[in-house]
Amino acid sequence: MPPDIPEFILPAIRAMKGYQPGEQPQGATSIIKLNTNENPYPPSPRVFEAVQYVLTGDRLRKYPDPNGWNFRQAAGKVLGVDPACIVIGNGSDEILSMAVRAIVPEGGVVVAPTPSYILYHTLAQIQGAQLKELPFEPDWSLDPRKLQGIGHLTLLPNPNSPTGTFIQPDKLKDWPTPLILDEAYADFAVGNGLHLVEQNPHIIVTRTFSKAYSLAGIRFGYAIAHPTVADQFYKVKDSYNCDVLALAAATAAITDQIYLHETRNKILTTRSRLEQELARLGFNVIPSQANFVWCQHPKKFEKRIYEELKSRGILIRYFHYPNWGNGLRISVGTDAEIDQLLDQLRTIT
Amino acid sequence: MPPDIPEFILPAIRAMKGYQPGEQPQGATSIIKLNTNENPYPPSPRVFEAVQYVLTGDRLRKYPDPNGWNFRQAAGKVLGVDPACIVIGNGSDEILSMAVRAIVPEGGVVVAPTPSYILYHTLAQIQGAQLKELPFEPDWSLDPRKLQGIGHLTLLPNPNSPTGTFIQPDKLKDWPTPLILDEAYADFAVGNGLHLVEQNPHIIVTRTFSKAYSLAGIRFGYAIAHPTVADQFYKVKDSYNCDVLALAAATAAITDQIYLHETRNKILTTRSRLEQELARLGFNVIPSQANFVWCQHPKKFEKRIYEELKSRGILIRYFHYPNWGNGLRISVGTDAEIDQLLDQLRTIT
Repeated sequence: MPPDIPEFILPAIRAMKGYQPGEQPQGATSIIKLNTNENPYPPSPRVFEAVQYVLTGDRLRKYPDPNGWNFRQAAGKVLGVDPACIVIGNGSDEILSMAVRAIVPEGGVVVAPTPSYILYHTLAQIQGAQLKELPFEPDWSLDPRKLQGIGHLTLLPNPNSPTGTFIQPDKLKDWPTPLILDEAYADFAVGNGLHLVEQNPHIIVTRTFSKAYSLAGIRFGYAIAHPTVADQFYKVKDSYNCDVLALAAATAAITDQIYLHETRNKILTTRSRLEQELARLGFNVIPSQANFVWCQHPKKFEKRIYEELKSRGILIRYFHYPNWGNGLRISVGTDAEIDQLLDQLRTIT
Repeated sequence: MPPDIPEFILPAIRAMKGYQPGEQPQGATSIIKLNTNENPYPPSPRVFEAVQYVLTGDRLRKYPDPNGWNFRQAAGKVLGVDPACIVIGNGSDEILSMAVRAIVPEGGVVVAPTPSYILYHTLAQIQGAQLKELPFEPDWSLDPRKLQGIGHLTLLPNPNSPTGTFIQPDKLKDWPTPLILDEAYADFAVGNGLHLVEQNPHIIVTRTFSKAYSLAGIRFGYAIAHPTVADQFYKVKDSYNCDVLALAAATAAITDQIYLHETRNKILTTRSRLEQELARLGFNVIPSQANFVWCQHPKKFEKRIYEELKSRGILIRYFHYPNWGNGLRISVGTDAEIDQLLDQLRTIT
């Protein structure tokens, strides 16, 4: 532990390293950014109309609606759920943070699969809790009995990142609870676990607007939970956690399901081509249910490939999981971006 | 404790009530809103330019800068502090939340004055901690020796809400630390405690853009702390806690100090008139160093006055502090709004 951190900072915080998000180059740049699973297409035109409408009103100076009712009513209609079940968040990361704060005691245990979203470790650490890793089986299934009864909360990203693998929601019915299904990538998958929330009030689903809705810059996510559980999350959240522009943007985006389907279909088509071409280049590729593809190189050259691509202006994500191995996660960009990536890969591998 | 809350929710969360922010009527409304200390004037025109500039770029679909460097450099210049000292927050409420999470253990103690910002209670409760109240003396000073040595963190709003009273920062040098000076209203006061951060790394100052900068809708606040302490806050914060539009808006707003001074001066002039007129109407008024005025009615009619004004379309804030008393907090609106308020008060009192 660095000796110069004041002792009034909690030991768990002093000891932790902090989450390192993927690189976010700022300003004008010609970099091809395939490292943080952003959507290569712009958000729905309705988003811009909605934001402009807010800007012409007298709304920046006033606090936003702390309960986000407009969004919850719009989302409730689209999803077919009671708006009372919906918790609004400043990105789904904030929803996960609320959940850990509401559920996990200091010294408690969070269970999450490995390899998976590294933020889960950070969230456990901030709470002074421990993360226990549930390893994926060779066929990318999970056996929750391996950690049955030891966790205060299980976090399951489905589809998983960085692997893009998906567990059929019906297989999750008997999982230990409370269980959070982190469905950040569910819009790109063949199914989702929304119906499980209705069947079991100890299951919570989280969603984001950063991926399929192409609003990573605006910070908006939500949870679907039993209304009693949702009420507890509202106690934990900052009153005004979602700003007036983000609320307007998310409300406009979710009402434009036609646009969502169009961009998603484009991404799925490109994803399929990317998978095939990576396999042709000799990578081991896992079929993806998300907007990225996870691959490993048979000669374990992943880090070198990542660095070489970076030097050529293409950012992808290199992950190293201790006791597991390395891999490359490539976000599905536009066809032109993926063509450039493949051209470069052909000269590297 | 309601029996139907699932047991996986932490007992401290189940038991708490949750913070109740002031009413935020949504949609088109003719209500005169003097209840949550919003600025009656719009934000700087530069804010709208900056937001429009972001909207014309390809930025909503990409994650924002997790470190907010553009804002930190601009704010560092204006404040004369090293950008490494600045922590960006989704409102200063989020900064306070980060501080509690980084500093206060489960079962710990937070010290804050009373009567004061009720959110401090909520933040302590969420952390499973206790809030100990340091009562204001009859002359609106505070004697921290009364609670010396018992708190893991002291929160001091300066100026205070709801009273608008201000403690000269030089009197805070020997206060118990860690100490957070919540300077949400400092732009309306005769001084601030920024220099104390440099003198003592155990003192942290927080600021907001919701009041003097008229950006309550956009959610932005920041802390100024010793760089080592700031680093710890960055570990606790969600990576992408501030969205791209809020970062652009706040950066534009803080660079327009001329506009800030103009609107502040208008507010201070109206505040002075409001204080005088309330006194003339028989209220006991405390001289304010913030953008609101706290007053009490000699016949203790506060609640009736609040309700009567509300029925006439004017929202102010009624507070009841157990073991202390009642009062009315009236935000300083435009001159026209204050004229209407005073007209109504003349017919009520």
